[in-house]
Amino acid sequence: MSGSSRRDRDLRERAREVIPGGMYGHMSTALLPPEYPQFFSRAAGARIWDADGNPYIDYMCAFGPCLFGYGHAPVEEAVRGQLALGDIMTGPSEIMVDLAEAFVSMISHAQWAMFCKNGTDATTMALVVARAATGRSVILCARGSYHGSAPWCTPRPAGVLPSDRAGVTYFEYGDAESLEAAFRAHAGDVAGVFATPFRHETFADQSLPSREYALAARRLCDEYGALLIVDDVRAGFRLARDCSWSALGVQPDLSAWGKCIANGHPISALLGSNSARAGAERVFVTGSFWFSAAPMAAALAALREIRESSYLEDLIEAGEGLRKGLGALCAAHDFGVRQTGPAQMPQVIFEDDPDFRLGYAFAAECVKRGVYVHPYHNMFLSSAHKPEDVALTLEAMDWALSGVRARRSDLQPHPGVAARLGLR
Amino acid sequence: MSGSSRRDRDLRERAREVIPGGMYGHMSTALLPPEYPQFFSRAAGARIWDADGNPYIDYMCAFGPCLFGYGHAPVEEAVRGQLALGDIMTGPSEIMVDLAEAFVSMISHAQWAMFCKNGTDATTMALVVARAATGRSVILCARGSYHGSAPWCTPRPAGVLPSDRAGVTYFEYGDAESLEAAFRAHAGDVAGVFATPFRHETFADQSLPSREYALAARRLCDEYGALLIVDDVRAGFRLARDCSWSALGVQPDLSAWGKCIANGHPISALLGSNSARAGAERVFVTGSFWFSAAPMAAALAALREIRESSYLEDLIEAGEGLRKGLGALCAAHDFGVRQTGPAQMPQVIFEDDPDFRLGYAFAAECVKRGVYVHPYHNMFLSSAHKPEDVALTLEAMDWALSGVRARRSDLQPHPGVAARLGLR
Repeated sequence: MSGSSRRDRDLRERAREVIPGGMYGHMSTALLPPEYPQFFSRAAGARIWDADGNPYIDYMCAFGPCLFGYGHAPVEEAVRGQLALGDIMTGPSEIMVDLAEAFVSMISHAQWAMFCKNGTDATTMALVVARAATGRSVILCARGSYHGSAPWCTPRPAGVLPSDRAGVTYFEYGDAESLEAAFRAHAGDVAGVFATPFRHETFADQSLPSREYALAARRLCDEYGALLIVDDVRAGFRLARDCSWSALGVQPDLSAWGKCIANGHPISALLGSNSARAGAERVFVTGSFWFSAAPMAAALAALREIRESSYLEDLIEAGEGLRKGLGALCAAHDFGVRQTGPAQMPQVIFEDDPDFRLGYAFAAECVKRGVYVHPYHNMFLSSAHKPEDVALTLEAMDWALSGVRARRSDLQPHPGVAARLGLR
Repeated sequence: MSGSSRRDRDLRERAREVIPGGMYGHMSTALLPPEYPQFFSRAAGARIWDADGNPYIDYMCAFGPCLFGYGHAPVEEAVRGQLALGDIMTGPSEIMVDLAEAFVSMISHAQWAMFCKNGTDATTMALVVARAATGRSVILCARGSYHGSAPWCTPRPAGVLPSDRAGVTYFEYGDAESLEAAFRAHAGDVAGVFATPFRHETFADQSLPSREYALAARRLCDEYGALLIVDDVRAGFRLARDCSWSALGVQPDLSAWGKCIANGHPISALLGSNSARAGAERVFVTGSFWFSAAPMAAALAALREIRESSYLEDLIEAGEGLRKGLGALCAAHDFGVRQTGPAQMPQVIFEDDPDFRLGYAFAAECVKRGVYVHPYHNMFLSSAHKPEDVALTLEAMDWALSGVRARRSDLQPHPGVAARLGLR
């Protein structure tokens, strides 16, 4: 079943010459099994094709952006039409106003919108706006939560100074007492609290916060005069058609969005309530391409689809079908497995697998069989993942689990993972 | 000649409800004369159309990105072709390798490339890479030089903490003694020096650095073991087909690029020599859309055009035609004017005009006559600005100067400008 990988190997060799490490960032395959291709040639619907032409049913959706699948016609038509009229210009298109109005009408807490490019732009704007709005310094973040790769938040601190994080203090996710202790330790100087919709760290089970915790976070922000910021860059629109914590009955002052809001076209957003408007008016933030019209046209088309289609129910159904099927297969093959997080953003971790050798072997077998899963990062479903794709996926997973079972005693951990997890 | 502006006014009113301040960032018209439209509907070649359908010959080129004019066919065809195949995927396209190789082959100092979205991403990566490469903290920047809008560099520090800039020290642009004093003050701890290709501050005459200054900056970096970083985001490819300081005989260790490298499509880059490679391999920087293929296809097509066409000579010719013509008109109308910076990135400031009332009146008259110039920011020419466009521009400017001369004694300064310049 495994296809050729010669072209990918040649590309990696060329890339090592002209790109540091051969590749960088979240799409580097350095920590993945060697069977994973690094370069891709094509994408459509729920599928991607690697540089050698091998197809995969893709459970990463470009690490989130593809909410309706790749090349989704209504979004692509909007982009093509706008590119023909004008994309970047010496000012924004009127579409920017339409898009801000669409967000404000859909996201309960939002009374204004600002657009940018990266998720990190949106979270950094949230931090700066919270400080400008309150005249305070301290931002509270949950330890281990990812909010981007700027010096104040990147998870790998090479090249970062302690002063870059002088205004950031950490608490334990989901622990209201820890959050309250952080507030007390900086009484009168907490500008804002970052809240991740659910706990979605790599190499770890995912967990949803309790309603009590979310309500406590809101109450503490109100008591201490700080702004509550929901970082919905990763989870936005996969949990709800509103800000993710709206399902828990909690409205933030600011929310950061990105990834899927234009089904893969480059735009992110900071949404705010009037409690943060004056702060937002005082900061200076901008970017060369922030006001380009084509990604705004894509976002407008995507928001319409979010309002009017059953995309959310579809991707939950696909995720639940996959979860149920994989659970049954694991039981049949005598593997214990923990499937955590929302079914539409699943994390799959094997039991009794502290160095991930089982999970890695399973993922590698899936990839050989044309199913792109991830062994340590949460995955993403799209509404292009149809029941027949899930059925094909489960066939491949059945084959993969047989392979892993046969080789179980020969498996070795990935050297990078052992180092990463501090096991060696 | 002045067209309708009703739609623009309606849009501004709607925008004030849902966008902080009605608009933000470098494309806000808050500091421009009221005649300037905020919203645009279309762009082609050297022209933009505002939301009411009024056309302008555009001397901002979207604040730089449009190097060959809007909707340039070879670039747009590359984008359309790539969008049909795949844009964002679960990894980069092989085009990323082609693009890194193209940059390395064209930019003398570059031995590797990393791609990102904003100019600020590229300058921030340069800062982090310089610190990672040297194990030192201090970054030297020229006072008043713009390097982006992140907390470490944004020119308006609302929401910024002193600690965000704890590792940044300032010197006087073009003054080798001031630079050397900064090195001595932080002996052994300077990681890098930011160099702007030429001095292009707003509300000020532009100036080119001397060859001696550029050589001194390189020599000091070598003596003190720091990396030299050229911020070519704004000027790149408008001064040379190589890094801008190559014309002065100076090669940096790092250069930051953005704006025009894909003729308006969203991509920026950090290029580096091997002196910075190990540092670049250690940092963690990434973004949801950094590895999208369509903007890389656009950049590849733009780089080909940069290598193979006479775009650079064409835009210099257009700039020089405009400069010469405007100089003659000002003399004929008895206005003193300082035209500074490279002709292809011109700054026009009137003599005896400390509060810019003359410059603002001239710019407003030009806009009424269908020529979009800027009264306080350097402008940008593109290779789509043909001699006939320059001729039409000069006709409009003749008319504009007549108007300003007639109203000269009634002119008032823009209230925001007076405040900005500290005149009130």
